[in-house]
Amino acid sequence: MAEEIAVENISVCLRRYIKDQQPVESDMEIVKSEVTLRLSEGTQDVLVQNLYLSPDPYMRNRMREIFTSYLPPFEPGKPIAGFGVAKVILSDHPDFQIGDIVTGIVSWEKYSVIKGGLGLRNVSHIDVPLSFHIGILGLPGLTAYAGFFEVCKPKKGEQVFVSAASGAVGQLVGQLAKLAGCRVVGSAGTDEKVELLMTRLGYDDGFNYKKEANLSEALKRYFPEGIDIYFENVGGKMLEAVLDNLKVHARIAVCGMISQNLSEHGEGIRNLSQLIVKRAKMQGFLMTDYLHLQEEFTKFMLSHLKEKKIIFIEDVVDGIENAPHAFIRLLQGKNIGKQIVHL
Amino acid sequence: MAEEIAVENISVCLRRYIKDQQPVESDMEIVKSEVTLRLSEGTQDVLVQNLYLSPDPYMRNRMREIFTSYLPPFEPGKPIAGFGVAKVILSDHPDFQIGDIVTGIVSWEKYSVIKGGLGLRNVSHIDVPLSFHIGILGLPGLTAYAGFFEVCKPKKGEQVFVSAASGAVGQLVGQLAKLAGCRVVGSAGTDEKVELLMTRLGYDDGFNYKKEANLSEALKRYFPEGIDIYFENVGGKMLEAVLDNLKVHARIAVCGMISQNLSEHGEGIRNLSQLIVKRAKMQGFLMTDYLHLQEEFTKFMLSHLKEKKIIFIEDVVDGIENAPHAFIRLLQGKNIGKQIVHL
Ligand SMILES: NC(=O)c1ccc[n+]([C@@H]2O[C@H](COP(=O)([O-])OP(=O)(O)OC[C@H]3O[C@@H](n4cnc5c(N)ncnc54)[C@H](OP(=O)(O)O)[C@@H]3O)[C@@H](O)[C@H]2O)c1
Ligand SMILES: NC(=O)c1ccc[n+]([C@@H]2O[C@H](COP(=O)([O-])OP(=O)(O)OC[C@H]3O[C@@H](n4cnc5c(N)ncnc54)[C@H](OP(=O)(O)O)[C@@H]3O)[C@@H](O)[C@H]2O)c1
Repeated sequence: MAEEIAVENISVCLRRYIKDQQPVESDMEIVKSEVTLRLSEGTQDVLVQNLYLSPDPYMRNRMREIFTSYLPPFEPGKPIAGFGVAKVILSDHPDFQIGDIVTGIVSWEKYSVIKGGLGLRNVSHIDVPLSFHIGILGLPGLTAYAGFFEVCKPKKGEQVFVSAASGAVGQLVGQLAKLAGCRVVGSAGTDEKVELLMTRLGYDDGFNYKKEANLSEALKRYFPEGIDIYFENVGGKMLEAVLDNLKVHARIAVCGMISQNLSEHGEGIRNLSQLIVKRAKMQGFLMTDYLHLQEEFTKFMLSHLKEKKIIFIEDVVDGIENAPHAFIRLLQGKNIGKQIVHL
Repeated sequence: MAEEIAVENISVCLRRYIKDQQPVESDMEIVKSEVTLRLSEGTQDVLVQNLYLSPDPYMRNRMREIFTSYLPPFEPGKPIAGFGVAKVILSDHPDFQIGDIVTGIVSWEKYSVIKGGLGLRNVSHIDVPLSFHIGILGLPGLTAYAGFFEVCKPKKGEQVFVSAASGAVGQLVGQLAKLAGCRVVGSAGTDEKVELLMTRLGYDDGFNYKKEANLSEALKRYFPEGIDIYFENVGGKMLEAVLDNLKVHARIAVCGMISQNLSEHGEGIRNLSQLIVKRAKMQGFLMTDYLHLQEEFTKFMLSHLKEKKIIFIEDVVDGIENAPHAFIRLLQGKNIGKQIVHL
């Protein structure tokens, strides 16, 4: 029998459930333990070393005790979990070999045992940065691709507005809109991000929503003839302002409402009767409904990356100990591009 | 030259613009005048005697000075106008002969001159009550037909909820839902109307929303597994409650929001993030976008009427002098079925 090695594990655990308010760093805690690099036979378990972790906005819903969302709550005292890229250290699963690079849901810790290899996927395109598999080739990538092409159904020449426009999803939607021949304007929460929209992401225009006293007036400035497509990432007052500026037959793809607190009901949104006047459509979607597009989407993104017709901006924080900070700064809008934790 | 006959005309005129509040009877006034039954040659004008007038909820928008909607405001001192059924008295238009029964937009008066015959349509199916041409075969009919089949896209066995369920549009949506093999529940504002839903309109169930302290709880009672299709006629708190009770991939056809005051913004609606969780669609529509379905829709309604597979309940008020009352009682929910004014 091979020698069993014990190594230090470092985990990010949920300290306590949050209520309706935004989570803070101290809602998580760093826990050190020892892990024996060993797997029992016949389990199909896979032991991985995590390389990149993805803090994502949806994770705050799992920090609440209530099961209102599509995923169960995290457990206090146990590591939180999310998408990650990892290297296989030991494997009892026929599909995964030692040294393989995999992606899937992993716990926020240095080493994770993935029971039965559940949800793991081998990563074949290793000619791009590995972190891209939780970015442009992962959750935010497929979200932008499916949300824009399948839900918004863009037509050449249409007027597109994107909120949280420089974020993981938003930066891609903007570029997809340009590829589809649309005019695209984005909003973001700092001048630096707005600058990025135009200089690197190909947006036609952009504005800092925090500097606008009246969002509806701001939108009228950028869309004097109205908005055909709104890619909704934030909700609240921005949605209300967009409803006030729709063109006939407009479409709103509701991807996220990150500005809303976690209370079950959210803020009241006015102007909804504009949906009738403008014969407009507002459609919520989840990327998980579009997994059948995985292959075409991966092809699309890889070929556009290679031809430099699309770029992907990341905001990398180093060290598992800094993962709680990375997560919270994302929710505070401090990330510039896709927030990543590099281990 | 033929003898010119002068007769008394009675008109319902707008007295003054309304603001954000609901209109009242005294916002309109009855004006008597004389009209000479004569047309100038070469004008293509048509002089009609109105037989039935249709008070419709959208008309209150035309009583405001602001042009926010898709039709211009009425003018104070001039007759208001809406859909009607009329008889041709004189015609300078090749398509219309004396004695023809026509439908289209007419002024609220006994006799109207329709400039160039604009928007008039000959009514060929005179084997149904003439008033049906502004009901089941007119605006509310096509609204229900297009809204339910084209926007809601029902599937057999789905759970359908209709508000203002016994009204002109609602009573038809309920029956269409049954024809499509759905389970359908309606809400209305009196016990008498709710009774009608089940005894005459084929609804599976119904409730008086004015007697419910908590609309979301009420919906949970009638839809323990959630709502697939909501045909939205009222807006406000009912919409909020429906959003709380959606099934995955639910569809909301936004036909009207009659509960909302006329302020430009309306009430704030919470629970919109449920659109994401349930991957649901909310789509506003106007019947005028579906005029290309006129022929198929007319065929459908006529054959179902003949086979007694569909019925249409009307609430008729007699006399043009009572037209303001008929309009206001509609907005107050006192109508049982399609509100009609019979001249
Ligand atoms: N439906 C799906 O399947 C799916 C999948 C992935 C993500 N999403 C959603 O997509 C949206 C974007 O996610 P992402 O991963 O790309 O995140 P991200 O945009 O990279 O980061 C979140 C950004 O949201 C903005 N934000 C934070 N708080 C805000 C507030 N109170 N008001 C307005 N904006 C605020 C900040 O940018 P600013 O500087 O612009 O404020 C922040 O940088 C989120 O709503 C997320 O839940 C949905
Ligand atoms: N999109 C289109 O093209 C189109 C075309 C036609 C009509 N519409 C809309 O469809 C809806 C129904 O129109 P309709 O012609 O069939 O009228 P209706 O249902 O025959 O009459 C209106 C009914 O609305 C209900 N109501 C009135 N005030 C209300 C309030 N504050 N809260 C809740 N319910 C209220 C009342 O019934 P209860 O007893 O149930 O309260 C009333 O009987 C309206 O919203 C109208 O604007 C849209």
